[in-house]
Amino acid sequence: MYLTREEVQQIVLKAKDEKGLTWREIAERAGMPKIHCTSALLGQGTLTPEQAERVGQLLGLPEPARRALTRPPYRGGVPMPPTDPVLYRLYEVILVHGPAFKEILHEEFGDGIMSAIDFEMHVEREPHSAGDRVRITMSGKYLPYTRF
Amino acid sequence: MYLTREEVQQIVLKAKDEKGLTWREIAERAGMPKIHCTSALLGQGTLTPEQAERVGQLLGLPEPARRALTRPPYRGGVPMPPTDPVLYRLYEVILVHGPAFKEILHEEFGDGIMSAIDFEMHVEREPHSAGDRVRITMSGKYLPYTRF
Amino acid sequence: MYLTREEVQQIVLKAKDEKGLTWREIAERAGMPKIHCTSALLGQGTLTPEQAERVGQLLGLPEPARRALTRPPYRGGVPMPPTDPVLYRLYEVILVHGPAFKEILHEEFGDGIMSAIDFEMHVEREPHSAGDRVRITMSGKYLPYTRF
Amino acid sequence: MYLTREEVQQIVLKAKDEKGLTWREIAERAGMPKIHCTSALLGQGTLTPEQAERVGQLLGLPEPARRALTRPPYRGGVPMPPTDPVLYRLYEVILVHGPAFKEILHEEFGDGIMSAIDFEMHVEREPHSAGDRVRITMSGKYLPYTRF
Amino acid sequence: MYLTREEVQQIVLKAKDEKGLTWREIAERAGMPKIHCTSALLGQGTLTPEQAERVGQLLGLPEPARRALTRPPYRGGVPMPPTDPVLYRLYEVILVHGPAFKEILHEEFGDGIMSAIDFEMHVEREPHSAGDRVRITMSGKYLPYTRF
Amino acid sequence: MYLTREEVQQIVLKAKDEKGLTWREIAERAGMPKIHCTSALLGQGTLTPEQAERVGQLLGLPEPARRALTRPPYRGGVPMPPTDPVLYRLYEVILVHGPAFKEILHEEFGDGIMSAIDFEMHVEREPHSAGDRVRITMSGKYLPYTRF
Amino acid sequence: MYLTREEVQQIVLKAKDEKGLTWREIAERAGMPKIHCTSALLGQGTLTPEQAERVGQLLGLPEPARRALTRPPYRGGVPMPPTDPVLYRLYEVILVHGPAFKEILHEEFGDGIMSAIDFEMHVEREPHSAGDRVRITMSGKYLPYTRF
Amino acid sequence: MYLTREEVQQIVLKAKDEKGLTWREIAERAGMPKIHCTSALLGQGTLTPEQAERVGQLLGLPEPARRALTRPPYRGGVPMPPTDPVLYRLYEVILVHGPAFKEILHEEFGDGIMSAIDFEMHVEREPHSAGDRVRITMSGKYLPYTRF
Amino acid sequence: MYLTREEVQQIVLKAKDEKGLTWREIAERAGMPKIHCTSALLGQGTLTPEQAERVGQLLGLPEPARRALTRPPYRGGVPMPPTDPVLYRLYEVILVHGPAFKEILHEEFGDGIMSAIDFEMHVEREPHSAGDRVRITMSGKYLPYTRF
Amino acid sequence: MYLTREEVQQIVLKAKDEKGLTWREIAERAGMPKIHCTSALLGQGTLTPEQAERVGQLLGLPEPARRALTRPPYRGGVPMPPTDPVLYRLYEVILVHGPAFKEILHEEFGDGIMSAIDFEMHVEREPHSAGDRVRITMSGKYLPYTRF
Repeated sequence: MYLTREEVQQIVLKAKDEKGLTWREIAERAGMPKIHCTSALLGQGTLTPEQAERVGQLLGLPEPARRALTRPPYRGGVPMPPTDPVLYRLYEVILVHGPAFKEILHEEFGDGIMSAIDFEMHVEREPHSAGDRVRITMSGKYLPYTRF
Repeated sequence: MYLTREEVQQIVLKAKDEKGLTWREIAERAGMPKIHCTSALLGQGTLTPEQAERVGQLLGLPEPARRALTRPPYRGGVPMPPTDPVLYRLYEVILVHGPAFKEILHEEFGDGIMSAIDFEMHVEREPHSAGDRVRITMSGKYLPYTRF
Repeated sequence: MYLTREEVQQIVLKAKDEKGLTWREIAERAGMPKIHCTSALLGQGTLTPEQAERVGQLLGLPEPARRALTRPPYRGGVPMPPTDPVLYRLYEVILVHGPAFKEILHEEFGDGIMSAIDFEMHVEREPHSAGDRVRITMSGKYLPYTRF
Repeated sequence: MYLTREEVQQIVLKAKDEKGLTWREIAERAGMPKIHCTSALLGQGTLTPEQAERVGQLLGLPEPARRALTRPPYRGGVPMPPTDPVLYRLYEVILVHGPAFKEILHEEFGDGIMSAIDFEMHVEREPHSAGDRVRITMSGKYLPYTRF
Repeated sequence: MYLTREEVQQIVLKAKDEKGLTWREIAERAGMPKIHCTSALLGQGTLTPEQAERVGQLLGLPEPARRALTRPPYRGGVPMPPTDPVLYRLYEVILVHGPAFKEILHEEFGDGIMSAIDFEMHVEREPHSAGDRVRITMSGKYLPYTRF
Repeated sequence: MYLTREEVQQIVLKAKDEKGLTWREIAERAGMPKIHCTSALLGQGTLTPEQAERVGQLLGLPEPARRALTRPPYRGGVPMPPTDPVLYRLYEVILVHGPAFKEILHEEFGDGIMSAIDFEMHVEREPHSAGDRVRITMSGKYLPYTRF
Repeated sequence: MYLTREEVQQIVLKAKDEKGLTWREIAERAGMPKIHCTSALLGQGTLTPEQAERVGQLLGLPEPARRALTRPPYRGGVPMPPTDPVLYRLYEVILVHGPAFKEILHEEFGDGIMSAIDFEMHVEREPHSAGDRVRITMSGKYLPYTRF
Repeated sequence: MYLTREEVQQIVLKAKDEKGLTWREIAERAGMPKIHCTSALLGQGTLTPEQAERVGQLLGLPEPARRALTRPPYRGGVPMPPTDPVLYRLYEVILVHGPAFKEILHEEFGDGIMSAIDFEMHVEREPHSAGDRVRITMSGKYLPYTRF
Repeated sequence: MYLTREEVQQIVLKAKDEKGLTWREIAERAGMPKIHCTSALLGQGTLTPEQAERVGQLLGLPEPARRALTRPPYRGGVPMPPTDPVLYRLYEVILVHGPAFKEILHEEFGDGIMSAIDFEMHVEREPHSAGDRVRITMSGKYLPYTRF
Repeated sequence: MYLTREEVQQIVLKAKDEKGLTWREIAERAGMPKIHCTSALLGQGTLTPEQAERVGQLLGLPEPARRALTRPPYRGGVPMPPTDPVLYRLYEVILVHGPAFKEILHEEFGDGIMSAIDFEMHVEREPHSAGDRVRITMSGKYLPYTRF
C-alpha cells in the first residue's frame, strides 16, 4: 500500500490523540529535538528508517506509513501571510526585525546567509516572575557567497 | 523642521557610512541590544530621548532627526515574500517549522501566543569547527488567551 | 474517535439548528460572553473542559467533539478582503479609521499596541429613536514595546 | 492655489509637530471626537467649514488647505493586510471574531448590517490593576436589507 | 435535517431545470423583484418565511430547504475580477465610470454614500431600433457620514 | 507642447477648484451627460474637438490640453478592490447581485452580454420621505454571441 | 436529470477518447468553426438545440447533456497568468504587443474597441519551408464608444 | 548621453504629437509592419540601426535615442489583468477560447507550441455592411517539444 | 476507460513505490534523459507510444494509462512562488541572476531568447572534496526575434 | 558622498554605454565569471575591494561607487512572474521541470537541497547546425538537511 505524506499526517494525529501521547514523548522516543520530530510528522521533514521504526511502534503506524516518513516531502505548510496568531507573530518578527537582522549578519559575517537547511531550532519555557516566556533558539550554518 | 522617519533613516545611513561606524558601535553607545537599536534606526522602533541624544551625538544627527526617532513609526519594513536570500531563509523557517512551533507552544503553555511586543532578539556568531554558525535567540512573553 | 475542529463545527451547526437553540442560550449555558463562546464553537477558540461539558450536554455533542473543543485551533476564519457585507464593514473601519486609531493610541499610551489575545469583545443592541444601533465594545490590554 | 488632500495632510503633520500640539487638543478645538477629527486630518474624512476654520487657526493652515479639508477624499488609508502591529491586531480581530460577530448580529437584529457611515468610534484608556487597557467603542446604525 | 445554503442552491437549480420554470415565474410567485428573488435563491439573500413557503411549493423544496432560505448567508458569489464577460462588463463600468460617479454623488449629495443594503435593482429589456438594450436601474438610500 | 492625460486631469481639477465650477456646469457647457463628461475629464474617455473647445474655454485650458482630451486614454481608474466606500458599494453590488443579473440577462435575452461601450449611465437624486435616494440608470446595447 | 456544464465536459472528453474522434470531426458534424465548437464543448459557449442534437448523436450524449450544452455557462476557463506554455505564448503577445495594438486600433478606427462577443477566431496550419506555422485569424466587430 | 528606453518612448510620443505623424507613416518609413514598428517604439522591441536611422530622421530623434532603440528592452508593457477595455478584450479571448486553441493546436500539430518570438501580427480594417470589423492575423512558427 | 493525466500520475507513483523502482531505472527503460522522463510521468510532458509501452510494461500500467501518457498535458506543476526549499533555490537563481543572464544573452546572441521547448536539461552529481555538488546543464535553442 | 546600490547601477550602465564596453570585457578585467560580475554590477552581488578597484578604473567610477559595490545589497531584481520573455523562459523551466528536478535530486542525494549561495552559473554559446544553442551550467553545493 502506498500512502501520501498527507495521509500519514492524518494517521499520526489520530493515533496521537487516541493514545494520549505528547509531541515531547514522541520526540524522545525518536531521539530527536521536539521541533524537528514534530515537523517531520507534520509532513515537513524526514525521519531515518530507525527513527521511523521507533515512532511507528509508539504510535502503532502501519509499515507503509513508516516508509513514507523517510521520503522527502514537499515542504511549506503555512499559508502566507499566516492567519493564526501564533504563526503571525513569527511573521511579524521578520517584518519588523528582518532588516536589522540582515544588517547585523553582514556586519559580523560578510556577504552570505544563515542556512535554513544546516539548521536547528529549539523552543523552551523560560520561567519569569512577570510571566513565563517562550524562548526560541535557532542555529544555522553561515554560508558565504562564493568568491571568484 | 519636521522630518519623516524615512528621511531620518537616509540621514542615518549616510552618516554611518561617512563616519565609518558599525551598528555594533552605535548600539553600544545607545546601550541597547544590536538588533533593537538597528531596527529603531531603520524605522522599525523608537528610542528614548536619552538614547536618541546619545546616538544623535555619535552620528551627528540634527535635532529634528533625534526627535523623530522617539516617534512610533509605521512598522513593517520587508516586502513579503522577501526576495533577499538572508530574509527569505527566516521566512522559510516559518513555512517549514511554523506548524511544529505551534504544536509545541500549545503543548507546553496552553492556548496562547508568544508576544512579538514584549520581546527581545539577539544574534551572535557561534564558532564551529565545520564552519561558524549564526545563533538567533528570541524571547517573548507568553500571553494566554483570556479565559471567561 | 478523532474529530477535527471543522468536523465539530458542522456538528454544532446541525445540532443548534435541529434543537432550535440560539447562540445566546448556548453562551449562557457555557457562562461565557456571546462573541467568545460563538467564536470557539466556530473553530476560532477553545473552551475549558467544564465549558465543553456544559455546551456538549446542551447540544448533545459526542465525547470526541467535546474533547476537540478544548484543543487550540488554527485561527483565521475569514477570507480577506471579506466579501460578506457584515464583515466588510468592520474591515472598512480599519481602512478608514485605522491610521487615526494608531495616532491616538500612541498619543495616549506611548509606543505599544492593544493586545488581541488578552482581549474581550461584546456586541449589544442599542435602542435609538432614529433606528436601533449596533454597539461593539472591545477591551484589550495595552502592551508597551520592551524598553532596553 | 489648489491643494490635494495628501498635501494638506503633510502640512498638518508638520504644523502639529512644530507647534507641539496633540490630536486631543486639535479635536477639542474642532469640537469633534478624537478619532473622527484625526481621521479627517489624515485624509479620511471631511470637516465642516466651521471646523476647518477652527482647526486651521489652531494649526495655522493656509486658506486652500482649509477648503480642501471640506472636500470628500478617496478613503482607504491602510495597505492590507496591515504590516504595522497596531493595525494588524484590529485586522486579527476580524479574522478571529468576524464570523461570531456575524452570527450574533443576525441573531439579535435579523438580516442586515452595521453601518460604517452612520457610525462613531471612540478610544479610551481604561485603568486596570493588571495593566491599563485600551477600550474601543463603536456604534453603527443597524441597516436591514430591504424587504420586498 | 440541516441543509447549507450551497446545498439548497443545488436543489433549486435542479428543480427549476426539471420543472422548466423561469426565474421570472419564480419571482412572481414570491412576489419579489426578479433580481432580488434570484439573488436569494443563489445564496445571496433571504426570503421571508411566507416567500420561502410559496417558492418552496412551486419548486417542491423540502422543509429544511425552505427554512434555510430564511437564514442570512455569507454573501459574495463572484470571484473577482470576474472572468465571465457578462459580469466583467459591470466590473468595467466601475473601473471606467467609478471616479465620475464618486464626483457627481458628492457634488449632488455631499459627503456620504449610496447604500447597497437599503437598495433595489431592476433589469429590463429596452426595445431599440438599432438593437434592443439592457436597462439596469439601481436605487439606494443616500447615507451621509455622521457629522459631529 | 505635449501633455499626458494625467497632466490634463490635474490642470482640470485645479481650474475647476479655482473657478468654483461644478461638474454639472461643465457637462452642460459640453452638452454631455454628467457622468460621461466627468469621466472624460478624469482621463477615462474622450471629447469631440467641439466639446473639448467648449470645455476648454470654460476652464481656460491651454490648446495642448484640449487636444489631449480627444485622444483615447488608457482606461481603468480605480484600484481594485476599491477602498473608498462610495466605490466599494458598487463593487459589492456585483459581488452580491452579479450572479442573479447574469441569470436574468440570459433568460430574457439569450447567450450574450450588455455592452459597456455602447452604453450610457446617469445618476440622479430621487427625493424620498424616508431619506433621498441615489438613482443610477444604465443602458447598454445587448450583444448576442455570434452564432455559426 | 440535471447536469452541470462541468459534468457535461467530462462526459464529452470521455466519449471523444473512447470513440477516437477529433475536434475537427465533431466541429464538422456541428457545422461550426473548430475553435468555437470546441470552446462550447469545453464549457465556454453554447450550441443551438440542433447543433447539440447532432453533436449529441455523434458522441452518444444523454439528453440532459444535450440540453445543458444550450445553457450559457460561466465563461473563463484559464487560470491567469497561464502556466501552460501554449496558453502563455498568447498571453505574452498581449504583454508585448498589446500597447501597439491599442495605438493602431485607435488610429485606424477612433475611440472604441474590438468586440470579443461579435467575434470569430480560426486556427490553421500554414506550410512553410523553414517549418510550418500556426496561423490565427480573429475578426471582431468594431464598437465605437457612444458619442453624446 | 545615455537614454533609457522609457525616456526614448516619451521623446517619441512627444515628437509624433508635435509633428502630427501617424504610426502608419512611421512604420512605412521604417519599412516594418505597423504593430511591430509601434511595439518597438513603445519599448517592446528593437529596430535595426538602419530602421532606427530612418525613424530617427522622421521624428527628429537625437543620436542616443536612435542607439537606444537598437538595445533589447525589458518587455512586458501591460499591467495584468488589463483594465483598459481594448486590451481586456484580447485577454478575454484567452480566458474563453484559450483551452480550445490548445486542443486544436495539439490535434493538428502534436505536442508543441506556437512561437511568440518567430512571430508576426497584423491588424487591418475589414469593411462590413453590419459595421466594420477589426481583423487580427497572427502567424507564429510551430515549435515541437524536443523528442528524446 | 478514460484516465486523466492526474490519475495516471497517482498510478505511476504507487507502482513505482510498490515495485521499488527508481526514476533512473524508469528513464533508462524509456531511453530518455532522467529529467524529461520524470517530468512526463509527473504530468508535465508526453511519451511516444513506444516509450509509453516500455514504461507501461515496467510499471505495469493499464492500457488507458499508457495512452494518456502520449496526450499533451496542461503544463505547470509548481505553485509560485515555490514553498519547497529545493524548488525555491531555483526560483531564487532567477531573482538574483536573471537580469545578468538577460544582459549576457543579448550581448552574445542579440535580441532573442533561449527556447524552453527545443530544450534539454540534465542533473548530475559532481564529486567535490569540500562536499559533492549538484550540476545542472540546460541547453535551449537560441530564437532570434523576427526581423522585418 | 554616500551612494545607494541603485544609484551605482545607473552610473555603471551609463559609463558602459558611453565607453562602449561589453559585460564580457568588464568581467575579464574583474577576473570573474560573466554572470557573477554582471549580477554584482546590477545590484545583486558584491565585489571584493580589489575587483571594485579594477572595475572602477575601467568604468571610471567615483570612489563612493566603488565602496558601494562591496556592500551586500538587497537581492531580488526580477518582478515575478517575469514579463520579459528571456526571463520568463527560465521561470517556465521551473514550472515544468521543477517537480522532476526535485525527484531526481532526492533520488541521487537524499533529503537536502542545491545551494544557491555556494553556487556558480555560466552561460555559453553552443554552435549547432540546426541553429546555435544557449548553454547554461549551474553548480551548487549539495546541502543535506541536518540529521539528529
